[in-house]
Amino acid sequence: MKIALDGFGGDHAPLAPLQGAALAVKEYGVEVVMTGDEEILRKTAKKHQIPLDGITFVHTTDVIEVEEDPTSILKEHKNSSMAVALQLVRDGEAEAFVSAGSTGAIVIGASLIAKRIKGIKRAIIASCIPSKTGHYLLVDSGANVECRPEMLCQFAIMGCAYMSRVMGIENPRVGLLNIGTEDTKGHELQQTANQMLKEMNINYVGNVEAREVPLGACDIVVCDGFTGNVMLKLTEGLAKFLLGGLKQVFLKSFKSKLAYLLLKDGMNEFKDKLDYTKQGGAPLIGIAKPIIKAHGSSNAEAFKNAIRQAKIYVEQDVIGTITEALQELKEKEAEEA
Amino acid sequence: MKIALDGFGGDHAPLAPLQGAALAVKEYGVEVVMTGDEEILRKTAKKHQIPLDGITFVHTTDVIEVEEDPTSILKEHKNSSMAVALQLVRDGEAEAFVSAGSTGAIVIGASLIAKRIKGIKRAIIASCIPSKTGHYLLVDSGANVECRPEMLCQFAIMGCAYMSRVMGIENPRVGLLNIGTEDTKGHELQQTANQMLKEMNINYVGNVEAREVPLGACDIVVCDGFTGNVMLKLTEGLAKFLLGGLKQVFLKSFKSKLAYLLLKDGMNEFKDKLDYTKQGGAPLIGIAKPIIKAHGSSNAEAFKNAIRQAKIYVEQDVIGTITEALQELKEKEAEEA
Repeated sequence: MKIALDGFGGDHAPLAPLQGAALAVKEYGVEVVMTGDEEILRKTAKKHQIPLDGITFVHTTDVIEVEEDPTSILKEHKNSSMAVALQLVRDGEAEAFVSAGSTGAIVIGASLIAKRIKGIKRAIIASCIPSKTGHYLLVDSGANVECRPEMLCQFAIMGCAYMSRVMGIENPRVGLLNIGTEDTKGHELQQTANQMLKEMNINYVGNVEAREVPLGACDIVVCDGFTGNVMLKLTEGLAKFLLGGLKQVFLKSFKSKLAYLLLKDGMNEFKDKLDYTKQGGAPLIGIAKPIIKAHGSSNAEAFKNAIRQAKIYVEQDVIGTITEALQELKEKEAEEA
Repeated sequence: MKIALDGFGGDHAPLAPLQGAALAVKEYGVEVVMTGDEEILRKTAKKHQIPLDGITFVHTTDVIEVEEDPTSILKEHKNSSMAVALQLVRDGEAEAFVSAGSTGAIVIGASLIAKRIKGIKRAIIASCIPSKTGHYLLVDSGANVECRPEMLCQFAIMGCAYMSRVMGIENPRVGLLNIGTEDTKGHELQQTANQMLKEMNINYVGNVEAREVPLGACDIVVCDGFTGNVMLKLTEGLAKFLLGGLKQVFLKSFKSKLAYLLLKDGMNEFKDKLDYTKQGGAPLIGIAKPIIKAHGSSNAEAFKNAIRQAKIYVEQDVIGTITEALQELKEKEAEEA
């Protein structure tokens, strides 16, 4: 299997993508096509003694930066490392795409270069977030600010396909993020979506409040991309604040430093559970090709995991599963009409 | 100063409100008028040896439960302990109101019995939430699902009055919750409100992302009540999940239990910092009388603190400050028109 990797996306490019690619080749037996300035890539690999078996390069010198207008991927930056990697996937020269570059540019580039699955209104960013009972998938976590109820229903379908096929959660529990469990809660968007989700052939558990989400209320949290992005970022910020406060407790005195030594193994295990790099990245679901957005600050390990995730996405035919579920929904709607 | 206290609001009523009232009388020299079944209140006080100096009762047998329709406070439950306490404040028989009862009923009851400040479109629930640098005030944290940009501007004014007068934060930094710092981010609501807030005579720091909020990005976070409620509840849920996970680390082995003993003081200090009961309750700002909503699970300490908060709200004339700021805004708008 061949994976297209944007060699110049992310804070630690091109070193971290190169290291991650080499690890993935070794551990998962994939081939990686990296886009970017071939001379720099080869020099970096040489300097850090990164083996290039299974890695090929497609040379391009342009890079789209995070602060640039995302739509520039279609125009000024159509030859950037990200755009070229997307073209490779579109043209069938690679089966999946991984990048740690600008989220906005990936969303626009993937939707317009690799295209959406037929029938899908909007692609979503799906973030897999640690919870008390394992993980939950947040759909949408930021790609779509304005949503309609039928879009939220498609988010649920896409979330189910990913959680069951890639994460191995059988019959995942779907919840609609709301500010109370009653049918009357929320905006019209939530009220209508709640009714529509009840009718669908999914394991819908109803409205869920944000308080219950980290405690394991459901496996898939459906919401608009504005609220989802707030959830995702608040989770990051709060974890940083709480773990930072805890660090201060440990650093306070000789006694507390000694305590830290006694706790070290358990604490590392707990921190590992909260570590996003273990997940790889966030899939952009709804695109006709597997697209994985790695975190901007991804290290070698995170890139390796994002490539593994892309591989499972292909092997488990997530796109086929979504297509089938859409077809089933369409038939059901036609029957009822 | 006389404070009206709903004697039958909250999970631990009437014992916790009674204990809290007695503590507040002793520590802050206030008088407390408690509403509720006088016989039960007197019996409870006697059984738990709670001194009743400075506490008077207004007898009423009805209680509005959390699961009931909030609007019933105006009809079926107009003689409930909550409604009667609000009437006492409206009629000038008490200067402020405290209850740990149904949030919905307090919002509706306060708006329609005690009435809003002239010119205020909607009252808000303002939650004071711990952050790395102290606290931030979340306005609105749940009273108003549907908001217009001019409402968010009033939320900022009310937040400033509370943070400067009650919390003692000079020139508080106001941020608009958004999914990016750029002017183009968010719904039309955020885009328009951002422009309007820039023009106001407040210390506006611009759009803030949820990630930065717990790390101390600003003192007042302005948002609609849907997003605010998600923020508030996710904060509660995540703190529970992370502190729970930590507890597991401590309970793991003999070694980790020993470590806990070494850390106990520092951990308790840290937990104290996160403890909502120290704050008292959330003020319902925008009502023509001081209204404090205590947490449903408030204990004696939390009731005492909510009463202290009500006292400061009165003494510092938060309502006068808001009225002046509204007048100033109106004059500025008239000048510009």
